[in-house]
Amino acid sequence: MTTENLLRLRPQEDRRLRAGHLWVFNNEVNVAVTPIKGMQPGSMVRIEDCRSGFLGWGYVNPASLICARLLSRSKTQPDAEWILGRLQEALSLRERLYPTPHYRLVFGEGDGLPGLVVDRFEDQLVAQVTTAGMQQLWPTVMQCLQDLLSPKGIYLRNDTSSRELEGLDQYVEEAAGSVPEFGEVLEGDCRFRVPLKEGQKTGYFYDQRKNRDGMLKYVKGARVLDVFSYLGAWGIRAAKAGAASVTCIESSARAGEWITENAKLNDVDIEVRIQDAFEALSELDQAGARFDVVFLDPPAFIKKRKDLKAGLAAYEKINQHGVRLLAPGGILVSSSCSFHLSQEDLRKAIVKALRRTDQRGQLLEVGGQGPDHPVHPAIPETAYLKSLVCRVLPR
Amino acid sequence: MTTENLLRLRPQEDRRLRAGHLWVFNNEVNVAVTPIKGMQPGSMVRIEDCRSGFLGWGYVNPASLICARLLSRSKTQPDAEWILGRLQEALSLRERLYPTPHYRLVFGEGDGLPGLVVDRFEDQLVAQVTTAGMQQLWPTVMQCLQDLLSPKGIYLRNDTSSRELEGLDQYVEEAAGSVPEFGEVLEGDCRFRVPLKEGQKTGYFYDQRKNRDGMLKYVKGARVLDVFSYLGAWGIRAAKAGAASVTCIESSARAGEWITENAKLNDVDIEVRIQDAFEALSELDQAGARFDVVFLDPPAFIKKRKDLKAGLAAYEKINQHGVRLLAPGGILVSSSCSFHLSQEDLRKAIVKALRRTDQRGQLLEVGGQGPDHPVHPAIPETAYLKSLVCRVLPR
Repeated sequence: MTTENLLRLRPQEDRRLRAGHLWVFNNEVNVAVTPIKGMQPGSMVRIEDCRSGFLGWGYVNPASLICARLLSRSKTQPDAEWILGRLQEALSLRERLYPTPHYRLVFGEGDGLPGLVVDRFEDQLVAQVTTAGMQQLWPTVMQCLQDLLSPKGIYLRNDTSSRELEGLDQYVEEAAGSVPEFGEVLEGDCRFRVPLKEGQKTGYFYDQRKNRDGMLKYVKGARVLDVFSYLGAWGIRAAKAGAASVTCIESSARAGEWITENAKLNDVDIEVRIQDAFEALSELDQAGARFDVVFLDPPAFIKKRKDLKAGLAAYEKINQHGVRLLAPGGILVSSSCSFHLSQEDLRKAIVKALRRTDQRGQLLEVGGQGPDHPVHPAIPETAYLKSLVCRVLPR
Repeated sequence: MTTENLLRLRPQEDRRLRAGHLWVFNNEVNVAVTPIKGMQPGSMVRIEDCRSGFLGWGYVNPASLICARLLSRSKTQPDAEWILGRLQEALSLRERLYPTPHYRLVFGEGDGLPGLVVDRFEDQLVAQVTTAGMQQLWPTVMQCLQDLLSPKGIYLRNDTSSRELEGLDQYVEEAAGSVPEFGEVLEGDCRFRVPLKEGQKTGYFYDQRKNRDGMLKYVKGARVLDVFSYLGAWGIRAAKAGAASVTCIESSARAGEWITENAKLNDVDIEVRIQDAFEALSELDQAGARFDVVFLDPPAFIKKRKDLKAGLAAYEKINQHGVRLLAPGGILVSSSCSFHLSQEDLRKAIVKALRRTDQRGQLLEVGGQGPDHPVHPAIPETAYLKSLVCRVLPR
């Protein structure tokens, strides 16, 4: 074996991997023995501790701060069969969880396939590759997906900025078969028309499904406000579950059309306001509007750690708006998909909002991402979504 | 107004209350102006900041580290009408949440009634009073409960050791009407016979209901192990949902009888092992037994902060046992009701268990206490229950 496919760690730097994590940072490598600079981005390596003890197989990227990700702790080098095995594992979990083939099929590290996301829309797949190592493996992954599921089409949404960190270019493409503009998702007793090519991220936010299921018990007869609606999934499911009225706020006119189409598809009435969320909430407050249930499901206000302060202020502001618009006994469902905002931070933002509006609160439920987005138990970074349900009462 | 019913805080010590919390610690009081030592335990006081600014009304206990708890931020002193209002608020939430009158009706600080817990078993109430202040208010609380619900009986389980911290004696009593030995709980499609007088805590663990609901999707056709069973709620619900087999482990012979009775009541077969949980798990492992789903719902291993180290070791041990007994792809549902063990600690205990058994894990769900145990958003101490669902896979 040449040192070409070997990564030797410095003393003590094997501890994170031994504790279950999958990442190696570039200052942890013994570059004298295994000069990572010269390695091919995405190539497969044996990872060893400082005493040549075997740790596992992973792929490297000299251009990235996370210079290697562990794939397997077995002696056998991962191959097509290994990839198929991981995909089968992922599929068997989803088939156990969901009655129809609508789910996130692969969630990166959480499914033991770092750098890969695959969403399933029945016979269409939308994938995203975010590391050089997964880019190398992608042809094999695609073949395995075809063997396993025979999809009519596979669309690659490789247009995420996180690819820059790995020195990868951004593009989208029909990677296999033919992919229509729209797919369909069944969720609860609703169906949603989902823009596979032009939608946000990989098209649909499966991660919030369980939290949407959870809110249904609060909405019967309620005046509902759905902020940052995108396709209207929160609002439309609430309407279907018996809400008295539903108002969706969405800044994108294109998404607004999708909400209206989805409302029609589910035979419910929704008011759609195409407006900036902060502006709309201010206006509603000034007009004296009050709601019984408010959903806040904003995009990530904190994308990078350096955005923490500004992002936190935005979360505080939006939650203050939400709390202010609630009628007594109303329910706030407040979410954040920013990894850098902890559940504690979001709780504190709600406490601040309650104090500023001189109201009391009861935290009824705390939800995370759905089980088709499994968290890697040793990698806190894989847990990004939190959704708090708070009942708001007068002083 | 005399200073008899006044509590003046020292400079800056109003910050916790202003931030939403309800507790005052005894080193935060200006004892020169308002000598708390002489105050009647449980008496009602006006709480003021150092500049005589009004903060609210609360009750005091000079014998307790938490020397006062805030009840209301309104100028009006809390009276019977105020108590009735809080109880109505609590009731309206539960009526919105549950189809039948089986729930925790009052959860202390979370429902704005510090020191009071009330569980409802249809027409029977089981209550627990844990502070001197609530003990003073209890006659009024009981009258309000009777006005509101006309229960056939109210049982007081004032036999918790936490009463010692408030200088209160421990006792149980039929406080009103007549209370039978057993009540009934409907949960999902099961019914449980609950020992109202001799059961653990206040009789039934409503706090885990939502987490039990959540596990049903994993149990069909599964070999299920229910550890620390008490009344068998986890195991019996799993059996009813189609588990292939269910084994309950319970150390108390008396509880073992209750499990068997409840299994009969629900027409399911359950194997009951009366044995220490750690012993039983070791034996099962040595016998080569494997399960598809394991529930770990231990009593609080950490009751006080000083027990943290020993308790953490116990959580690690029990989780290692649980993980070891799982078949590939099996599901661990691991709970902790110790406030002093954080969700993070429990996650880490599971990670350790996975590493020691050389397995991989996927954290699928994170649950807390059910919404009839509302968390006070500014009082982290009111969030005590965590339940993690982890899928376990071969290396």
